[in-house]
Amino acid sequence: MMNDRAEHISKAFDEELRLLNNRLAEMGGMAEAQLAGAVEALCRSNAELAERVVVRDKEIDALDLEIDMFSVRLVALRQPVAADLRTIFAAIKISSDLERIGDLAKNIAGRTLAISRFPPLPTTVSIASMATVVQSMIKQVLDAWTARDTQSAADVCARDVEVDQHYASLFRELLTYMMEDPRNIGPCTHLLFVAKNLERVGDHTTNIAEQIGYVVLGTRPPDRQTHDPTNALVPEADSQ
Amino acid sequence: MMNDRAEHISKAFDEELRLLNNRLAEMGGMAEAQLAGAVEALCRSNAELAERVVVRDKEIDALDLEIDMFSVRLVALRQPVAADLRTIFAAIKISSDLERIGDLAKNIAGRTLAISRFPPLPTTVSIASMATVVQSMIKQVLDAWTARDTQSAADVCARDVEVDQHYASLFRELLTYMMEDPRNIGPCTHLLFVAKNLERVGDHTTNIAEQIGYVVLGTRPPDRQTHDPTNALVPEADSQ
Repeated sequence: MMNDRAEHISKAFDEELRLLNNRLAEMGGMAEAQLAGAVEALCRSNAELAERVVVRDKEIDALDLEIDMFSVRLVALRQPVAADLRTIFAAIKISSDLERIGDLAKNIAGRTLAISRFPPLPTTVSIASMATVVQSMIKQVLDAWTARDTQSAADVCARDVEVDQHYASLFRELLTYMMEDPRNIGPCTHLLFVAKNLERVGDHTTNIAEQIGYVVLGTRPPDRQTHDPTNALVPEADSQ
Repeated sequence: MMNDRAEHISKAFDEELRLLNNRLAEMGGMAEAQLAGAVEALCRSNAELAERVVVRDKEIDALDLEIDMFSVRLVALRQPVAADLRTIFAAIKISSDLERIGDLAKNIAGRTLAISRFPPLPTTVSIASMATVVQSMIKQVLDAWTARDTQSAADVCARDVEVDQHYASLFRELLTYMMEDPRNIGPCTHLLFVAKNLERVGDHTTNIAEQIGYVVLGTRPPDRQTHDPTNALVPEADSQ
């Protein structure tokens, strides 16, 4: 049986792990909200909202740093093993992925400000539908993390194919607009990067899903898929 | 004075840390070589070399996973504190940045294969000179890590401004080619992403430099700079 002191330390440690999970959930909610804000700003040409997203990114960065420092301190003080140690390492990785999702949202917001000088293009429908898939994946992976649900996490990874399909079709659409009228090149270039950013949010979401498997099962995925589905998509030079 | 067993454990741990540093240096060399290969393949339209870069990326991924697993095991078994613990956490972060640099090199190689179908553009000179800056930053940061040289690491961070300037000028150059002739839109779109990839390699190199300060001084930088220097660069819709 545990003595009082050991029990006290164990309780304190459980409390600290709970705190770590809470901060991570908070950070996840922020990343989710930032992406939703950036996409809404883009689709409604709302420069004020875009600027708010840009400013608020600092909060996510601060939380990432806090989770990092807290995790290192926790490992140093409590010297955890097995699943507890994996949880802490996973928290560091997840917070870094969430920080990157925040960056990508900020970048989309920045491009919204740059694009607002141009007449609107009809591509916002495709961008909004791609964003819907990505946002629902983020929501699902955060819930899966809270519940340590590996099945749902695997489902998130499988849904990344959908994101790639959206990206490929959006890429084609944007190239067509650029070829039709050179005045579209400026705004379409920004939208190409927006599409790429959404595709990368999908990748980070998949990374988070893989961490859930690691924490629960103690295993890593055999290989990380990193490809760009548009590599073979650009039309031939003489096709128009 | 240490007893024999403590001394033995301490020696074994030193050896493990040395091994960790060696694997990281090896991974750094691989990332450096992969980027050099990708840029050479692009500039000389060497499809065979590009394919080799794409295939070899798996080796960097495998090393990243190995360093991750080794680090977690090291923390669990040796329960290090202070500078040793910071070194291990830094190794995890650095290996993840090197893995991303490898991915970006692979992506550049993939785009080289896609671009090879088009007649060459005169932008390779600008891309090569941007790549030269980025490659010398990687070399410098890897040396700074080995020597734990915070001054040199700070220098690497300062040089990221050069990369941003190259990127901004390349971005303008590519937009001009696209506006001149719609047949350039396909290949230039790929080259825009190549330029963006090189800019991101610069960011990852800066991240690595920041880890050196963290290990040596125990402090984190106050704020991570994450911006896209092209946001305000696209010419007005009616400017041509």
